[in-house]
Amino acid sequence: MKINYSNPSIQKDITKIKKPNAHGMLFENALNISNEYYLNKGIASIHKKPTPIQVVKVDYPARNKAKIVEAYYKVPSTTDYNGIYRGKYIDYEAKETQNLSFSFKHISNHQIEHLKKIDALGGIAFVIIFYRKINKIYLIDIKVFLKLFINSTNGSAKAIHHRVADDMGIEAVQGYSPPIDYLTAIDKLYFEK
Amino acid sequence: MKINYSNPSIQKDITKIKKPNAHGMLFENALNISNEYYLNKGIASIHKKPTPIQVVKVDYPARNKAKIVEAYYKVPSTTDYNGIYRGKYIDYEAKETQNLSFSFKHISNHQIEHLKKIDALGGIAFVIIFYRKINKIYLIDIKVFLKLFINSTNGSAKAIHHRVADDMGIEAVQGYSPPIDYLTAIDKLYFEK
Repeated sequence: MKINYSNPSIQKDITKIKKPNAHGMLFENALNISNEYYLNKGIASIHKKPTPIQVVKVDYPARNKAKIVEAYYKVPSTTDYNGIYRGKYIDYEAKETQNLSFSFKHISNHQIEHLKKIDALGGIAFVIIFYRKINKIYLIDIKVFLKLFINSTNGSAKAIHHRVADDMGIEAVQGYSPPIDYLTAIDKLYFEK
Repeated sequence: MKINYSNPSIQKDITKIKKPNAHGMLFENALNISNEYYLNKGIASIHKKPTPIQVVKVDYPARNKAKIVEAYYKVPSTTDYNGIYRGKYIDYEAKETQNLSFSFKHISNHQIEHLKKIDALGGIAFVIIFYRKINKIYLIDIKVFLKLFINSTNGSAKAIHHRVADDMGIEAVQGYSPPIDYLTAIDKLYFEK
């Protein structure tokens, strides 16, 4: 595994996050560190959106100090990541699977719809999937993803096998810095055609 | 005042949000409604990012039901809004003032830095200011905003008077649907030059 889990800033971020579902956290943090790297190098500005939280009750134990005492996680209305690269709008959803196939039930319709809209508006929209078992990361453009998804509702596979991802998507290579060099994959998929 | 405050969906959003500082809420909601309008028309996909919240403690009163019982508002690392319009990446910060001038102390350095980076990467970056007293909304491109900001540190005005905004920015006209037609202002400022 080439993702640098011992990086202290990754560890800090992990302990900071207390989501009900910790699944995919290391992958997400590797993406976040990669985005920080790209930002610091002036290559791209891509950020993870904060998790939407519905705040119900706030206390003020001290003046100007708000303490949220009742809140709930909300379903995000868009994707996890967006930003700018090579002057283009970039938007993607990051997914992880422990299986050899990524099941469509792990992505919501409104996320697919959102990516479809971005594509229609001229942006770069894709799903990035980490197949943990084989330690491979693939980008799949939303148009391709959508085709596979629609086929799945017509009796085809209800999931994307990593071999299909390898065939129809493009691999994002893992390394040290950045941990996931997915912009090079974007270059190949969208700019070098 | 042309912003339609009686719109039920605005009201719903207002009651949903319980932030420590309710200042600027109606302006933000008018922007959100405008963005919904643009999205539904297929013109643009621009969204407000969720408020970043640091979750400290989560209870599970029932299986699969997470209740956040201790959390705090965090300082956002980027701006409030971003998205895509006419194929371009759009990023802006929305501000409101009750005075005739917008004071620079109400925008943070890291927000200005973020907009500067977006501009350098080829995106559209600006600050949108609602001068409530005169009921006018202006877009000011980050390059212009930065010039005014830098001058302010050299002895010039520490704020942007609405006449300066009118002179150096562009007005976003208020109407019924969308409540704030700021994309028309973007057209003029960035596409019809």
